[in-house]
Amino acid sequence: MPFDIVRAAHVELVVTDLARAREFYVDTLGLELTEQTADALYLRAYEERLHHSLVLREGPEPVMGHCSFRVAAAEDLALLAELFGSWECPVAWVEPDSDERGQGLALRVQDPLGFPVEFFHAMDKAECMLQRYDRYAGGHVRRFDHFNLYVPDAKVGYEHYRRLGFGLSEYIETDLTHRLAAAWLYRKQTVHDVALTSGRGPRLHHLAYTTANAGMILHLCDRLAAGGWVDAIERGPGRHGVSNAFYLYLRDPDGHRIELYEGDYYTGDPDHEPLRWSASDPRRRSLWGHDVSDRWYEEGTLVAHIDGSGPMALAEPVVDERVPVS
Amino acid sequence: MPFDIVRAAHVELVVTDLARAREFYVDTLGLELTEQTADALYLRAYEERLHHSLVLREGPEPVMGHCSFRVAAAEDLALLAELFGSWECPVAWVEPDSDERGQGLALRVQDPLGFPVEFFHAMDKAECMLQRYDRYAGGHVRRFDHFNLYVPDAKVGYEHYRRLGFGLSEYIETDLTHRLAAAWLYRKQTVHDVALTSGRGPRLHHLAYTTANAGMILHLCDRLAAGGWVDAIERGPGRHGVSNAFYLYLRDPDGHRIELYEGDYYTGDPDHEPLRWSASDPRRRSLWGHDVSDRWYEEGTLVAHIDGSGPMALAEPVVDERVPVS
Amino acid sequence: MPFDIVRAAHVELVVTDLARAREFYVDTLGLELTEQTADALYLRAYEERLHHSLVLREGPEPVMGHCSFRVAAAEDLALLAELFGSWECPVAWVEPDSDERGQGLALRVQDPLGFPVEFFHAMDKAECMLQRYDRYAGGHVRRFDHFNLYVPDAKVGYEHYRRLGFGLSEYIETDLTHRLAAAWLYRKQTVHDVALTSGRGPRLHHLAYTTANAGMILHLCDRLAAGGWVDAIERGPGRHGVSNAFYLYLRDPDGHRIELYEGDYYTGDPDHEPLRWSASDPRRRSLWGHDVSDRWYEEGTLVAHIDGSGPMALAEPVVDERVPVS
Amino acid sequence: MPFDIVRAAHVELVVTDLARAREFYVDTLGLELTEQTADALYLRAYEERLHHSLVLREGPEPVMGHCSFRVAAAEDLALLAELFGSWECPVAWVEPDSDERGQGLALRVQDPLGFPVEFFHAMDKAECMLQRYDRYAGGHVRRFDHFNLYVPDAKVGYEHYRRLGFGLSEYIETDLTHRLAAAWLYRKQTVHDVALTSGRGPRLHHLAYTTANAGMILHLCDRLAAGGWVDAIERGPGRHGVSNAFYLYLRDPDGHRIELYEGDYYTGDPDHEPLRWSASDPRRRSLWGHDVSDRWYEEGTLVAHIDGSGPMALAEPVVDERVPVS
Repeated sequence: MPFDIVRAAHVELVVTDLARAREFYVDTLGLELTEQTADALYLRAYEERLHHSLVLREGPEPVMGHCSFRVAAAEDLALLAELFGSWECPVAWVEPDSDERGQGLALRVQDPLGFPVEFFHAMDKAECMLQRYDRYAGGHVRRFDHFNLYVPDAKVGYEHYRRLGFGLSEYIETDLTHRLAAAWLYRKQTVHDVALTSGRGPRLHHLAYTTANAGMILHLCDRLAAGGWVDAIERGPGRHGVSNAFYLYLRDPDGHRIELYEGDYYTGDPDHEPLRWSASDPRRRSLWGHDVSDRWYEEGTLVAHIDGSGPMALAEPVVDERVPVS
Repeated sequence: MPFDIVRAAHVELVVTDLARAREFYVDTLGLELTEQTADALYLRAYEERLHHSLVLREGPEPVMGHCSFRVAAAEDLALLAELFGSWECPVAWVEPDSDERGQGLALRVQDPLGFPVEFFHAMDKAECMLQRYDRYAGGHVRRFDHFNLYVPDAKVGYEHYRRLGFGLSEYIETDLTHRLAAAWLYRKQTVHDVALTSGRGPRLHHLAYTTANAGMILHLCDRLAAGGWVDAIERGPGRHGVSNAFYLYLRDPDGHRIELYEGDYYTGDPDHEPLRWSASDPRRRSLWGHDVSDRWYEEGTLVAHIDGSGPMALAEPVVDERVPVS
Repeated sequence: MPFDIVRAAHVELVVTDLARAREFYVDTLGLELTEQTADALYLRAYEERLHHSLVLREGPEPVMGHCSFRVAAAEDLALLAELFGSWECPVAWVEPDSDERGQGLALRVQDPLGFPVEFFHAMDKAECMLQRYDRYAGGHVRRFDHFNLYVPDAKVGYEHYRRLGFGLSEYIETDLTHRLAAAWLYRKQTVHDVALTSGRGPRLHHLAYTTANAGMILHLCDRLAAGGWVDAIERGPGRHGVSNAFYLYLRDPDGHRIELYEGDYYTGDPDHEPLRWSASDPRRRSLWGHDVSDRWYEEGTLVAHIDGSGPMALAEPVVDERVPVS
Repeated sequence: MPFDIVRAAHVELVVTDLARAREFYVDTLGLELTEQTADALYLRAYEERLHHSLVLREGPEPVMGHCSFRVAAAEDLALLAELFGSWECPVAWVEPDSDERGQGLALRVQDPLGFPVEFFHAMDKAECMLQRYDRYAGGHVRRFDHFNLYVPDAKVGYEHYRRLGFGLSEYIETDLTHRLAAAWLYRKQTVHDVALTSGRGPRLHHLAYTTANAGMILHLCDRLAAGGWVDAIERGPGRHGVSNAFYLYLRDPDGHRIELYEGDYYTGDPDHEPLRWSASDPRRRSLWGHDVSDRWYEEGTLVAHIDGSGPMALAEPVVDERVPVS
């Protein structure tokens, strides 16, 4: 691989009410506000050292503006532009500190799966708050970890990310037809940077932050319930079979889905073997046997086109994980 | 009150397979086995100092043999016999260390609500394992706390326990008709020793043990899932609005419901005021807004007659908490 | 016993800088401020339902103004006044809502051990914040639990509290001479309301609050370190052998010692047997074998006279727990 | 860098009583036993997928046999042999599955710092027990993380590991003389794979495993105290300033020092900046201001020569971190 994608780095969400979004993400979850502009908030978590891992941008309808990967060197951007260009994907350059504050030159592509994906190398440093425990609030959110994308065909999505150099940590396969229903892919040494879920796509299923510990996820539930946000709790807390994460899924005021979790594992060894789950094994999505609502399998966030046009059209999934023979 | 009921002390469950029950309660939950006889197991939790807080007795069908309260003095038993006799309740005396190992003279009554209830004062001491942390296993279960009973009319049940000197900590009332749907009553300085749930009764809804901390409840879920007991997880983990407990509900191999929880509060002040919840407030049963299945409102354990005859006949509830206008 | 002491209820500490004390107790530990007057703060913890469990009163030197017990009925006050009067102790009545806001008629005595002790029955109710999790801050402090007093002769102190109806839960005895070095005594159903430590007295050793869980005690250490309060950490976190408490000892800006802890146990059974520890057993003060500094055995807070005169004179201890043959 | 060291992978400790060592590591800490031979135990933690991360080998005196790094490819071994040979270091090859069970071809060198260091690529796979929660015991030990080495001159040690491609995450420097007192160096994306502590060397300071959460570290203290291992607790629990780890240091029956910890952070970004601590900042070694005993700075494990000869001779340190002007 001539280029080196380091990790999933941030997401830009379009929200319809910036003040309300701030109440949720800053006042309740406890993310740090690095910078606020007329139409956007730039947020980071306590452990992070870059300007932002979440951009909330005010707009007319809730979509994902883009999801973003950091690359190891500035030169990687040209190599990626060339690669996506060779696939005839729309490609655009974003000048430093222009559309996105604090960020250096960035490449945006509409990838072969239909997602608006950004690559960047340089970003302003921000104070690491890891040991500013006197500021800790909300759910003690530590670090942006991954995003999970709905794709009509997980196999196509999987092959795309393998071409970009991602490793496979875990996957779900239907029993009879051996079709890929979901896949977890990583660059950094955790379970994933990006996960692919079979479903109407391209859409964002969720973005995820790690937290300091499971106790803070329980406390966050209490805070949400007490603070009038009980409807934000969509699923959990519980344990995933896949990834071993102790999870909580929330829906923000615009319906964007956020996961808070702790407990995944190291994947950095060169011969790390992927773990297969059968789509008929109920432990895959809930180790503890909790029901997973259809809502969790069906609802998600539309994604923008990098040219600023309306949300991308959706295609129906070719596999339904809930129907093992699909 | 001329007599003094100290607290809810234990339950006798009839189980159909003692070996299987032992795997669940001892090997998985981590209760200590004080004594085993041909047909019964006597169990206690780490903090406890008496011979048992749970009796598992093998029998042909799963019922609750009795639930039991400890009284402050031996003389209280005669006073209670007289009282229940005056209500024309069936009354029987159990000689020390006869039907129930390790226990002194006990009074059994079929109470006005139809439940087989035992009162005792004396019981053999057993080693307190609180600081035998090297033996801790399973869910780090600490102390028997309460039982929850299905009664057709919670108001009748409430009045009965008030006559026995119980305080009211919390209750659920229907909105329009102001009818009592559930009540939490205490003698010791916690939220409850006995709870009453509107439903077909007399039946046992569940018995409950406290655990060392919430983390061990999460770990117990993991142990259950890994050890082949995932179907034992019925509800939770989650937070009750009522009682503030962080709870997990399990079903043992015979379907008896067991709660493990931590987090209730002190009720020992003389003017402790009961907390009212509306039956239409979803936070009452789940502070975090989780659905409560009908199964949790409808399934339970039949109760025996103290004369050894078959389970008590059931009456339909007069209030349905799930129907706020009932 | 014709009167009924319910529990240890609060302490009044004289502090030399009320603003600085507020930073420590409110902004850092997370106590709720019920009321502030020109010279005093009235604080409570999240679970509490009365106006205050701690009074911080500004004054020229840091002393304990008084420690306070709640009694079950207003009539108990006269009985206690008579009793302490019969012992020729100074006795004074405090009119409702006069010297101490929110409190009804109170009796203050200088007890036979030299401590300024208050008894009261009535106090204004305050909102219980137990489920106002959105307000939780600092160490998630839940409930005032006990105070620990230095007495020159623990046996004399023990006999005094036994006369007031206290039960003994645990005690430390020297090995060779079998002299009482420390005692834990309770009215409510926990390990203690008052503990007695051999030492120069009368002085306050510490007052103690329970917290939501051990994780919050760890987090409070982090908050203190990050917020410039690292010197406030005197001892711990660790586990006591005695009482099984997971503890943290802090020193406030005036040197008053505060314990935060979780993990004690139920003592409400009528035949609860006291647990004896040998003064030569290092696990008694630290189950994990941590050294206990001389500072922890020697430093404490002087106590006031109820007539407002200067701090009480001190007497030397007759037993030194650290010298097993003393 | 033509070769690629993946991470610190294991340590071989020589113990004088294999049965006693097994009681400590397997029965008490909860490590999994992969294989036992006549003179050695091969252990791993729950998350691990290779045959062993700790070898305990019986021998006449307690030394570290070697510490070991995994490399990304088999070819890396020859490159490393050439490199260490060019430095005139003793070099030896260990045939697959010969001296060390389950391991492929390995290179052993006596490195320029005097340590017996092993490099390997291939090792037998072992079942990952991450979700075998029903087997979890002891301290829920999750993953081998790093070793910490005493070196007479931390600067020399630092330069050596930089030449091997390690990143620097944190370091301690004396104030006036700006001399390096300690350094934390990583290959995998955590704070460290190897740490260097100024002191008499070459010696092993400690090896470290991560645990599932802080609560299990507290519980392990309780288990150790209850099981007769209280003297094994040397330091902690507490929080390091450096690395942010919540730590516990134990001494095994032969005096080898083991750290259990949780809480470090991600270091995988290409421009990760090292964090400097002043040797006069007490928070560096204990964020909470705990004293660090001289024992912790002075005691350690001698290291073997790869030719099997006696322990390596020691040199005195050139910097004493405890003396800021050294």
